[in-house]
Amino acid sequence: MSGFREDELTRNGFLDARVQLWQPARGYRAGVDPVLLAAAVPARAGEAVLELGCGAGQALLCLGARVPGLALAGVELQAPYADLARRNAAANGQAIDVHEADLSALPEALKQRQFHHVIANPPYYKAGAHSQARDDGRKVALGEGTPLADWIAVAARRLVPKGRLHMIQRADRLPDMLAACDGVLGSLEVLPLAPRQGRAAELVILRARKGGRAGFRLHAPLILHEGDRHERDGESYRPEIRAILRDGAALPWPA
Amino acid sequence: MSGFREDELTRNGFLDARVQLWQPARGYRAGVDPVLLAAAVPARAGEAVLELGCGAGQALLCLGARVPGLALAGVELQAPYADLARRNAAANGQAIDVHEADLSALPEALKQRQFHHVIANPPYYKAGAHSQARDDGRKVALGEGTPLADWIAVAARRLVPKGRLHMIQRADRLPDMLAACDGVLGSLEVLPLAPRQGRAAELVILRARKGGRAGFRLHAPLILHEGDRHERDGESYRPEIRAILRDGAALPWPA
Repeated sequence: MSGFREDELTRNGFLDARVQLWQPARGYRAGVDPVLLAAAVPARAGEAVLELGCGAGQALLCLGARVPGLALAGVELQAPYADLARRNAAANGQAIDVHEADLSALPEALKQRQFHHVIANPPYYKAGAHSQARDDGRKVALGEGTPLADWIAVAARRLVPKGRLHMIQRADRLPDMLAACDGVLGSLEVLPLAPRQGRAAELVILRARKGGRAGFRLHAPLILHEGDRHERDGESYRPEIRAILRDGAALPWPA
Repeated sequence: MSGFREDELTRNGFLDARVQLWQPARGYRAGVDPVLLAAAVPARAGEAVLELGCGAGQALLCLGARVPGLALAGVELQAPYADLARRNAAANGQAIDVHEADLSALPEALKQRQFHHVIANPPYYKAGAHSQARDDGRKVALGEGTPLADWIAVAARRLVPKGRLHMIQRADRLPDMLAACDGVLGSLEVLPLAPRQGRAAELVILRARKGGRAGFRLHAPLILHEGDRHERDGESYRPEIRAILRDGAALPWPA
């Protein structure tokens, strides 16, 4: 798969247009999930952050826009997306060290580094469960070639002691995520993301700490939309969610 | 440890006094958790129900009071509690087949039976994490001699195909519970029980099905108390919780 042509791309603004993201008009397109992921990371200036499967760079760019002075790096399996992540970094005046590589075979340059934070938004569908992807890029991005346990094992190896993983994933993968952390990462916390009050969480953000020994915590869900039924998406976000998506605020992680 | 003397016991009413429970004045005493557990079980007349670690019989008696026509059985490690469960069954005009046994060595009479439902409220503290128990009975009831994985494995063996386990447990044990179900029980559902809106769940009810193949579901929390801070316990239960505790209603399990 070669790089994207200009006429195959669209540009979308995130964080009230503070982040401009070129992405393919067809195929895998970023939504709000990477923005919520980036907002959950308590990174501070001077720290290093690695994203596994960085796609076109959306999460890293949102994090970089909120917290200046981070050293950002990304790994992306698909060359056209890795290329796009570089272009998007340049277009946003940010530096991202993008590596085109498979998670299971990171380049030496990354293997010799450790990071204060690792973030990941791994593909949402189990292999075989989703066969209607319309193009190859979307298929790889959604179809999960790499088991979740490998994402978590690689993340753990790249973290400094006490470093943190944040991963956003479908709620139905929670048993797999927790199992993968067993003996690898500790101080697990799960923040369910529920579309509305009283509705089941569709997504969760997992926070885990290398060498952490605190007990597991299941937080109260973060509710995304106002009201108890779907009206107009853009308008219905709750104020603290709107602050994340529009103003680039940090996600208020429960104490 | 011999049986309890009359003057060591107190009698408490549950389900608006429809269930009368003798229990030791000192030591492990039942609270609302077994009532909530019993309320979550969708048992129907004619079905067989086994409780692992039935204590003084509270959950089985509450379930029997709500759903007449069940065949109730219980296993209890501690002889004085097994004895109390028999006395409580008689006092409530219910039949419970109580066996004094270790989970890991069930009597043949139980090993030859299968049940439509297994319920359990295993001890809440990891061995070693809670050393201040004031008497032996409370220590065994809270101190966890038997790993959660054994509770779940024994439950799975005693269930009919498609039979269901319901287990109430501290939320921080969720990773252990889910790991123990892997390859043993399926169609896992977790209902967090949160003290108040916006607060983290302290307890969860796990529902699992023998041979179930549905995806994992993390439900919206069931909120126990009104308001967002603690006032008076008895008065602050939300109406649907009061209906469970006072009127013996079923717990409204999410669709």
